[in-house]
Amino acid sequence: MQESFNIASSSGSYSVALGSDLLAQVIAAHPDAIYMIDERLESVLPDSITKRILITANEISKSLECMPEVILKLRELGANRTSHLVAIGGGVIQDVATFVASIYMRGIPWTYMPTTLLGMADSCIGGKSSINMLGYKNLVGNFYPPVDVLIDMAFIQTLNEEQVVGGLFEAAKICYARGYPEFLAYLQESPAYPMQADNAQRVISRALQTKKWFIETDEFDQNERLLLNFGHTFGHAIEAGSDFGITHGIAVGIGMVVAVEYAKQAQLLTPVGISHAEHLISHVKALLGEGLKRVVAHPPRIDLALIMEKFNNDKKHRTEAYRMVVPKGDGNLVLISAPKTDAVRRDIELAYQSGLAAIAYPQG
Amino acid sequence: MQESFNIASSSGSYSVALGSDLLAQVIAAHPDAIYMIDERLESVLPDSITKRILITANEISKSLECMPEVILKLRELGANRTSHLVAIGGGVIQDVATFVASIYMRGIPWTYMPTTLLGMADSCIGGKSSINMLGYKNLVGNFYPPVDVLIDMAFIQTLNEEQVVGGLFEAAKICYARGYPEFLAYLQESPAYPMQADNAQRVISRALQTKKWFIETDEFDQNERLLLNFGHTFGHAIEAGSDFGITHGIAVGIGMVVAVEYAKQAQLLTPVGISHAEHLISHVKALLGEGLKRVVAHPPRIDLALIMEKFNNDKKHRTEAYRMVVPKGDGNLVLISAPKTDAVRRDIELAYQSGLAAIAYPQG
Repeated sequence: MQESFNIASSSGSYSVALGSDLLAQVIAAHPDAIYMIDERLESVLPDSITKRILITANEISKSLECMPEVILKLRELGANRTSHLVAIGGGVIQDVATFVASIYMRGIPWTYMPTTLLGMADSCIGGKSSINMLGYKNLVGNFYPPVDVLIDMAFIQTLNEEQVVGGLFEAAKICYARGYPEFLAYLQESPAYPMQADNAQRVISRALQTKKWFIETDEFDQNERLLLNFGHTFGHAIEAGSDFGITHGIAVGIGMVVAVEYAKQAQLLTPVGISHAEHLISHVKALLGEGLKRVVAHPPRIDLALIMEKFNNDKKHRTEAYRMVVPKGDGNLVLISAPKTDAVRRDIELAYQSGLAAIAYPQG
Repeated sequence: MQESFNIASSSGSYSVALGSDLLAQVIAAHPDAIYMIDERLESVLPDSITKRILITANEISKSLECMPEVILKLRELGANRTSHLVAIGGGVIQDVATFVASIYMRGIPWTYMPTTLLGMADSCIGGKSSINMLGYKNLVGNFYPPVDVLIDMAFIQTLNEEQVVGGLFEAAKICYARGYPEFLAYLQESPAYPMQADNAQRVISRALQTKKWFIETDEFDQNERLLLNFGHTFGHAIEAGSDFGITHGIAVGIGMVVAVEYAKQAQLLTPVGISHAEHLISHVKALLGEGLKRVVAHPPRIDLALIMEKFNNDKKHRTEAYRMVVPKGDGNLVLISAPKTDAVRRDIELAYQSGLAAIAYPQG
């Protein structure tokens, strides 16, 4: 069953549709568009689609240094100011498409079809791009939402358990960030692997409808929307510290566990707050699995000194203070600034230690 | 005497101030900002300003390939999401600053101080950037206005006659585009070289207040604002066809002459329209000067075949039709689509011939 809703943005409203067979609808609606697609998915395009830009879904492809090559392809395919771009793929394809569509001839309209659960349940709305530059991860980027987002449930079946669980962590993050009642309502939709199309659509719909509130309230990431960084500052350090051996979605789940441990360490939570935050953590742990059923069968050993270095260098911090999204009081999220003192650094390190121990990931 | 007004934009309103001593005010207000400045102007900065990025004002500096180097300097100077960028210079510096400020950590606030008349009277508001890529001029760009624009009349005295006249052509274009009465009112401000500070401020203020209507009515260049391309499609071909021996501002003046010739050739004008358009042309011719008083003392010989090739490749055209801003009827500007037929191409070529003849520029 198809459903749709709109997102308001400063550059006009855009639509989000969820359902089956949407790829066929896009192709029928845009036979002459330029299709930018994850090279591994190229076979979903019919032969009638001849204007194609294939993207390898890796960190190099989403670097500023690689943009001229992609834009040159647009030019060679004859794109002008009225051309339409259709992007099909996960986060890297979304980042490249957002950035390129925003600057090609000062902006062309585009359609996005996310193919990962992380894209479907979270990043496909909000209009952000994150672009690497000269080895700095996500140093540049911008805001340029597509004119429509079409989420075809058929792509769910192409995802493995790690990809689904990573996406579910972002979905859980959004709902928990909105408040404990929203998180409880989300859990009613049975977010777990494996997912069938109808189950997936309900989970994705709830996450996106919740995220809609954040991005309509704070489009440019100045206030409320910053709460959606929950799990990210702690998680990015794990991603980078494992040399990306731990994927973004999984790292966000672990990052939420560490953030809760930090809040406990720094005594920010009331007993009610602890019970709400622990409920989230038990959900994360259940999705990560244990023993032979672990999603990441052999997690890499995590070097705490390296993690702390990566954490220190995160661009979200200020010169004098760490900026972290953590649960506080009765468990609602807040953005806190903690001075860069030895005591705070020790709390952060202890939070990593106890967080990684809680999920039985090796550290050293 | 200082004056100021606001411009409304989708990302919030920004202020424009005109007056003297504004550079000193900016430096007092932003002692810790990062200053991006035309390297030829560096001496205007006091020693207390230590965070500097020097830009060579040429076409290479505003290419997408050069952006990583500039952004790396921002990073090395310690810029974070709350850092402020102050850009001081002409069009190239504005283009680089707009683009870089828009994407660095997804956007940082910036202040712009234009130092050319073209920047002061036209491009400093509207928020556009134009960036070259792999040899394609202005193929990419975006919209990202500064938080304030400060126009210090002291910079007027650093400009030569060709630079002043080029800026006046853009100012005349804006006022004519708004309508013949606005153009007559503009002429009352005595736009001519040399200009004193008070005279310059009145000319600039009138041009900007007129442009304000266009960009507030049509921020993203979809309808009314497109009329400000008057002189540009014809002019860009002259710029490119002379290998940039004819500067942008001068080329826009010549482009307006050619556009009027086209309208006459294609019989688009009533007798009233011809008289209004001729009034503009006589203003352009007066500014270009003649004989020994010519602004461009030795204009390069213009190769018509090359000009036609450049005109054909302009990115503003559609696949099937040329798009041109020309006076029509009683002389008001319109955006027309003319089919790419031999007859239309002949009219365009004849317009170039008679336009260049009217200003006594050599052609062949």
